[in-house]
Amino acid sequence: MISVEEALEKVLGYVDVLEAEEAPVLEALGQVLAKDIVSDIDIPPLDNAAMDGYAIKADDARGASEQSPRFLRVIDTVSAGTISQREVTPGAAIRIMTGAPVPGGADSVIRFEDTDEAQRRSPDKDEIGILCEVKPGLNIRRAGEDIARGTVVLRKGTVLRPAEIGVLASLGMSTVKVIRRPVVAILATGNELVDIDRPLPAGKIYNSNTYSVAALVRRYGGIPRILGIALDSEDSLLAKLRQGLDADMLITSGGVSAGDYDMVKDVLASEGEITFWTVRMKPGKPLAFGTLKGMDREGSPRRIPHLGFPGNPVSSMVTFELFARPAMLKMMGKKNLTKPMVEAVLEEPVANTDGRRVYVRAIVTRRDGQYYASPTGPQGSGILTSMSLANGLVIVPEDTAGAKAGEKVKVLLLGWDDEDTI
Amino acid sequence: MISVEEALEKVLGYVDVLEAEEAPVLEALGQVLAKDIVSDIDIPPLDNAAMDGYAIKADDARGASEQSPRFLRVIDTVSAGTISQREVTPGAAIRIMTGAPVPGGADSVIRFEDTDEAQRRSPDKDEIGILCEVKPGLNIRRAGEDIARGTVVLRKGTVLRPAEIGVLASLGMSTVKVIRRPVVAILATGNELVDIDRPLPAGKIYNSNTYSVAALVRRYGGIPRILGIALDSEDSLLAKLRQGLDADMLITSGGVSAGDYDMVKDVLASEGEITFWTVRMKPGKPLAFGTLKGMDREGSPRRIPHLGFPGNPVSSMVTFELFARPAMLKMMGKKNLTKPMVEAVLEEPVANTDGRRVYVRAIVTRRDGQYYASPTGPQGSGILTSMSLANGLVIVPEDTAGAKAGEKVKVLLLGWDDEDTI
Repeated sequence: MISVEEALEKVLGYVDVLEAEEAPVLEALGQVLAKDIVSDIDIPPLDNAAMDGYAIKADDARGASEQSPRFLRVIDTVSAGTISQREVTPGAAIRIMTGAPVPGGADSVIRFEDTDEAQRRSPDKDEIGILCEVKPGLNIRRAGEDIARGTVVLRKGTVLRPAEIGVLASLGMSTVKVIRRPVVAILATGNELVDIDRPLPAGKIYNSNTYSVAALVRRYGGIPRILGIALDSEDSLLAKLRQGLDADMLITSGGVSAGDYDMVKDVLASEGEITFWTVRMKPGKPLAFGTLKGMDREGSPRRIPHLGFPGNPVSSMVTFELFARPAMLKMMGKKNLTKPMVEAVLEEPVANTDGRRVYVRAIVTRRDGQYYASPTGPQGSGILTSMSLANGLVIVPEDTAGAKAGEKVKVLLLGWDDEDTI
Repeated sequence: MISVEEALEKVLGYVDVLEAEEAPVLEALGQVLAKDIVSDIDIPPLDNAAMDGYAIKADDARGASEQSPRFLRVIDTVSAGTISQREVTPGAAIRIMTGAPVPGGADSVIRFEDTDEAQRRSPDKDEIGILCEVKPGLNIRRAGEDIARGTVVLRKGTVLRPAEIGVLASLGMSTVKVIRRPVVAILATGNELVDIDRPLPAGKIYNSNTYSVAALVRRYGGIPRILGIALDSEDSLLAKLRQGLDADMLITSGGVSAGDYDMVKDVLASEGEITFWTVRMKPGKPLAFGTLKGMDREGSPRRIPHLGFPGNPVSSMVTFELFARPAMLKMMGKKNLTKPMVEAVLEEPVANTDGRRVYVRAIVTRRDGQYYASPTGPQGSGILTSMSLANGLVIVPEDTAGAKAGEKVKVLLLGWDDEDTI
């Protein structure tokens, strides 16, 4: 039996960052940049007006005041997206809208409020009164102020959030090179399992693991491929496994204990290689990990990491969070593979009876800047509703007999996304 | 000019929870349950073995020890998914695998390790030696232990996380009634804009707002519908707007300032109703909100909430987070509409010169349990790269002249999802 840390190290040791793909920029949301992005344009492309007003020479406003306006000839109007063909010469002004390129000859933009614009009717608009002095550069956004041509705008390895998608679009990139998402094949095993769209015969249970695992795969950015249910026979298991051998990772649930019908280990041993089996944790002890002989997209041989989860629904979700999630994130090129963790005050005692690291489903709340964790009740690993109640997993170390109420404990946060983050 | 709170209250006042839809259970991830889920089965459906072992009567093990085993006749073997047709009578045992229904007559399961199973070869397996006493109920998971038939398993309003998807699957639900996702139509306005897949003429800029906004819509669980670019003319704007009138919300960017070519307000006034225009915030002051005359899926008239964002890319993202996000979440039936916020120590001073609430892009870090916020540099609302650097927005209240380095400030967290949550 190895520790959680050793197990994770082995899993990550068998997992590589996937290849890059060219994706439409909006589809790449949440993926990781596969190369540096260098801008081949300036943003903004030209000096432009930050306000609606008049493009002038600052010199022409010298001495101007409300009492003694300086009057300039209005020789053109320019709006965003158009370029004036006229040049601002001494004594001239060009009416300009926010975002419009600053015409040649002008060195500043004076806003409407600092002119007599509001007092003028249309026919009079070939002249404008300037009501204050201005400094050269006033209300001008400089070309390249946001992004200068030739600079690295986003680094390889950056996770693309909405702001980065916007930056790529501002460079005119309709597609972008990102690390592709992993395809995770999911197989449930067990004669007792029935598909969720079928009636339930006596003695059988519905296959829920496939759906909680598929939802976790999707939550963390992967593509689940559901292989269905394999019966407890080597033939059935092999036939199903072979349908998943072009995936990037294979997850099975069930069949990894020591029972007569637990075939997964045997098949794994014949079709690949077992790296470890059993981890010093609870739930999740009979976790198997190995590699299967598979093939890549071109049909060349490669080894596919395989996680064999216990059949209990809670064990399967907990082992996913601890091992499959970091493996998936590594494949996607992400750097931060650890789950968010907080220190919390335990509100009820929890026991540790057999020297494994215990993950206790708990409700985490925050009151007056302090986190508190309260176990959700019965912790049987078949009890999926306790996982549904929980938003955290209290960690009870393997070398302790448990933790008392009032003690500080570490808690992994399971919360959905930021609207549920506490 | 109204406050951020008044503006949000008005926006939310015009937004309703959307209708329910029946969705495949895995697709419903992240959506909100539209009705209580009552189980019509027990889970587990029958009393079953928690360990591999023998189903026996506890009475038959009385006085058993390693020195003096009690021997029982093995009359059957039962594995998960099958039901034994035999009954455990006094002196009899049935070999049983984890998860298998406990046969009639048995009241406990003794695990292999507490029998002489390991010493026996196949031919001898019609008898088993019991090596210790057992209590009735030992190693039996009770029918209905996780979910009892007739109980409410999940309440209306619950957000479906992977654990809840698993719970629904365990009940045999292949589809589920959830509040549908909002369709958000997105329209960029401005003669200066060019589609990202086209060459860039002089004086033009790429349309980036549509993509950052579409990415935000997707991030928060909505369905973006991209309408493209409208020119600064009433005809062009009207034609484009009308393509979005069967969406649940319409977001335009640009055209809401006071410039000659800012048509959005005029069209809004003619095609619907303006609720407010300008909010006491920076960036984002010229935010417009109103409703447009649209139609529902059946073609009946209804009013569509319309958010008119400023054209600057940062303004557009900040106003999305403050107004469009909570509106979308409300439509989806979510209860918690507020962004996660922390208190942080400001590392550099920030100024507030004109009595608006300022949202300063900042990098938030956590050191020794304390959050720190450091502004990302120039805060021009055209500077989208500053939004890409940031993971938080420092809030500078409208009634202050700014905040000093070392002061405690409130910060909205923008982080991606939990792998980036600090």
